[in-house]
Amino acid sequence: MNGIELGPALLALSTRADAALARALPEATQAPTELHRAMRYAVLGGGKRLRPLLVHATGATFGAAPERLDAAAVAVEIIHAYSLVHDDLPAMDDDALRRGRPTCHIVFGEAMAILAGDALQALAFDMLANDPALREDPATLLDMLRTLAAACGSHGMAGGQALDLAAVGQRLSAAELERMHTYKTGALIRASVRLGALAAGCRAPATLDALETYGHAIGLAFQIRDDLLDIQAGTAQLGKTAGKDAAANKPTYPAILGVDASRAELAALIRTALAAIAPLGDAAALLQELARFVAERPS
Amino acid sequence: MNGIELGPALLALSTRADAALARALPEATQAPTELHRAMRYAVLGGGKRLRPLLVHATGATFGAAPERLDAAAVAVEIIHAYSLVHDDLPAMDDDALRRGRPTCHIVFGEAMAILAGDALQALAFDMLANDPALREDPATLLDMLRTLAAACGSHGMAGGQALDLAAVGQRLSAAELERMHTYKTGALIRASVRLGALAAGCRAPATLDALETYGHAIGLAFQIRDDLLDIQAGTAQLGKTAGKDAAANKPTYPAILGVDASRAELAALIRTALAAIAPLGDAAALLQELARFVAERPS
Repeated sequence: MNGIELGPALLALSTRADAALARALPEATQAPTELHRAMRYAVLGGGKRLRPLLVHATGATFGAAPERLDAAAVAVEIIHAYSLVHDDLPAMDDDALRRGRPTCHIVFGEAMAILAGDALQALAFDMLANDPALREDPATLLDMLRTLAAACGSHGMAGGQALDLAAVGQRLSAAELERMHTYKTGALIRASVRLGALAAGCRAPATLDALETYGHAIGLAFQIRDDLLDIQAGTAQLGKTAGKDAAANKPTYPAILGVDASRAELAALIRTALAAIAPLGDAAALLQELARFVAERPS
Repeated sequence: MNGIELGPALLALSTRADAALARALPEATQAPTELHRAMRYAVLGGGKRLRPLLVHATGATFGAAPERLDAAAVAVEIIHAYSLVHDDLPAMDDDALRRGRPTCHIVFGEAMAILAGDALQALAFDMLANDPALREDPATLLDMLRTLAAACGSHGMAGGQALDLAAVGQRLSAAELERMHTYKTGALIRASVRLGALAAGCRAPATLDALETYGHAIGLAFQIRDDLLDIQAGTAQLGKTAGKDAAANKPTYPAILGVDASRAELAALIRTALAAIAPLGDAAALLQELARFVAERPS
């Protein structure tokens, strides 16, 4: 499956996010060393850094300096990484391969993987609460912490995981599948966009609503692309076990809508996302690029 | 093993904390229902509510109204409950009994127990960040969120769990054992005291240091009492599997120091705790009572 890669501006921001993550995580030489090794392994193993890019692209739309966005970018990626560690556990998806490497519990054991995920979640709140760039603006920082906490909880990502668990082996409708993904991956993606806007000082309700629409649409689009890649690509290309969803009897867009209708839905979502941010004009160029990337990413 | 019970003022605050927790947790009728059922089961199953009591007792020492302390009290207990759910998992301590009832994963399955713990951690930050009583004081609330996040992370509770994992089957020195407990249970206990002080507007460094000493001492005292109860009480009395630590080859104070020296150390820690708060006089009566309770609690 072909696809497009990130352009130079987003690629530079992705590198920036990698560097910020490496600084944010405790050194593996610090005690407890094994826990810190597991945390670094889980976060620093590559990945597209989509969520940090959404923070930066949204913040840049409103003119925020990248320094003002680093902590939020780090926080959302750390949350994402923790969710993957727990998701891959034997009691959950039981996956041995992630981003082309053995999963965290394969390398460090189940107990340490559980703890690494737990400590990462705390670290995300810690990093954001201690953001040096926003120290003088506690009200904004509090709003951002509320956004992050809501996105992680039982009405957000963790709730979506619970819906996902309940869906295994079930025949879901397209609406039920959408609801599950709206929580499971959508909540954190929408939060990433909102965090970028809040850090940049954007408080206009109409603009925040438009960004919510954008985030919702690309969150679902991301998942459809994921499902399409899962059935069409090989394991080496994906860096995770291909065909896993179907084998695990997990509901997917291609299984429920068919491949052609899934592609059409993906295209419609990207149009919705682009229309939502159209009023922001060229300032939102990076958000436009990210929407197209989500639709056509190669892996 | 005999012991003392809570006096009427602390008992009333314990009941208050129970009510606040029941309100804070999403209703089990709200979707995702199974996740919310598991979260409520994990938190509302009784327990001593030591951490909420520490928040309230410290806040009361500085004259704060209980309403100003409810959110922090809820947050620390939710964090404690999540840590127990993950600690009891098969990959961790593999315990089937807690507070006289089957553990969360026995009732809801491992995957749901992992998710319930994850969602509870997020909920604790959510509750604190949205504390209605401190909304007008974002700087204090931010300080409190920083305190909570640090207590939960790899340099706090999760770090202590990792040290605990590494200690199984090892011969620890008394100093290593103390270090492990200083993180594992101590970090959240110290944070509970500090949160009560911060919510009450106490910022005097000397007072916060004295409270840190108090929290550190009763945290360790709590653990020694736990270890003594574990070898001396029966399962029915404890509400969790008795003799479990020794069977699991876990290092304990009685195993390392002997029973008599453990009792002496416990008494010394309580003296240290009481001496630290002596300058606060009668205003700290509830903290004094809690120190004695920790030393002599019956289960």
